[in-house]
Amino acid sequence: MNNPFHTCHNSRIAGCDFAIYPMTDHFVDVITTALKEVDTSKVWVKTTDIGTCVRGKITHVFDVTKALFLHATQTGYHVVFSGTYSIGCPGDSDGDVFLAEDDRRLNEAESNKIKQEVAGKFSLYPLGGGDYMNLIYDQIEAMKKQNIRVSSIHYATRLDGDGKDVFNGLEQVFVNMEHSGSSHTVMTTTISANSPSKKDVNSDD
Amino acid sequence: MNNPFHTCHNSRIAGCDFAIYPMTDHFVDVITTALKEVDTSKVWVKTTDIGTCVRGKITHVFDVTKALFLHATQTGYHVVFSGTYSIGCPGDSDGDVFLAEDDRRLNEAESNKIKQEVAGKFSLYPLGGGDYMNLIYDQIEAMKKQNIRVSSIHYATRLDGDGKDVFNGLEQVFVNMEHSGSSHTVMTTTISANSPSKKDVNSDD
Repeated sequence: MNNPFHTCHNSRIAGCDFAIYPMTDHFVDVITTALKEVDTSKVWVKTTDIGTCVRGKITHVFDVTKALFLHATQTGYHVVFSGTYSIGCPGDSDGDVFLAEDDRRLNEAESNKIKQEVAGKFSLYPLGGGDYMNLIYDQIEAMKKQNIRVSSIHYATRLDGDGKDVFNGLEQVFVNMEHSGSSHTVMTTTISANSPSKKDVNSDD
Repeated sequence: MNNPFHTCHNSRIAGCDFAIYPMTDHFVDVITTALKEVDTSKVWVKTTDIGTCVRGKITHVFDVTKALFLHATQTGYHVVFSGTYSIGCPGDSDGDVFLAEDDRRLNEAESNKIKQEVAGKFSLYPLGGGDYMNLIYDQIEAMKKQNIRVSSIHYATRLDGDGKDVFNGLEQVFVNMEHSGSSHTVMTTTISANSPSKKDVNSDD
């Protein structure tokens, strides 16, 4: 299954500004190895000293970010993905993007092989409209239909489950927002794997 | 100088959901040491396996988050602060907060002793209104009046300078947003210190 998501508004430039934080002295190796294992040829990529930005179609932006994090988790080190997915910013430029690509996801098959428990959270920010809280609540409900444990925390919604399912849930929410007609959507997420800390899930709903 | 910021709307509950990522095998020590060195008694604090949430008056939320990061940088390890500051969320609860405190900042004197070059970025999300882009542009201009190098990157605004100045700039922007009448403001930031990567500043404006 190359693309499990139903997209129709896939011609807008999506992007993710993210970083992967490996809590180890070998943090450089963890990141460079993950970058080697993931095919980023369908997204525009720029890495600086404060993070990496990928831009392209929604499907490829999620395919690449999911794959990079899942590969990094397989080192066994405590690693955290922190990212901001964005689409439709009126201040965005048209450049720095590959939109001519087809929808075949280059890393889906490899990502599907990785089973990794993660703990994460996400927040959704639909900009520019007054009805944004209902859009957020709808997507929290949508997330509960995924194969993920969803609970409430301050300023975010907590997600626990398999890493693939968490990223797939985030992608589905982001695609749903495009269907909702939201002109400018921002979604932030933090996803942690191999933490030595005990899980702290506040609620079981 | 205990509180360099002019606040008038300081009765609303502000909060920051953040984590500090030390890229070292000793990551637990770095975080527990910073927590011991910082006085968090004027904010409500909760730490879980996916991060820490502090809630209270704006001034104390910034005092504590700034101090925690600056202390962590002094270990010399590559450390990154990633946080979401928030105020006025209609879905927020009234609980889990200390608002009865005075405005004296408990960690300002110690933070002022720390000189640390950092590289960071921030994004501002004023929710619920159509004129949000102008609010954002105004605050990017306001940031340029701080003692910080400010440049444009995709999805965020890059900040380079001394750690204190960067946090003070972020606090001033957050306070400015309260003065602007924004009902619900979210500000995300990532701030990095001691990175082995070469600085990558795109522009010098």
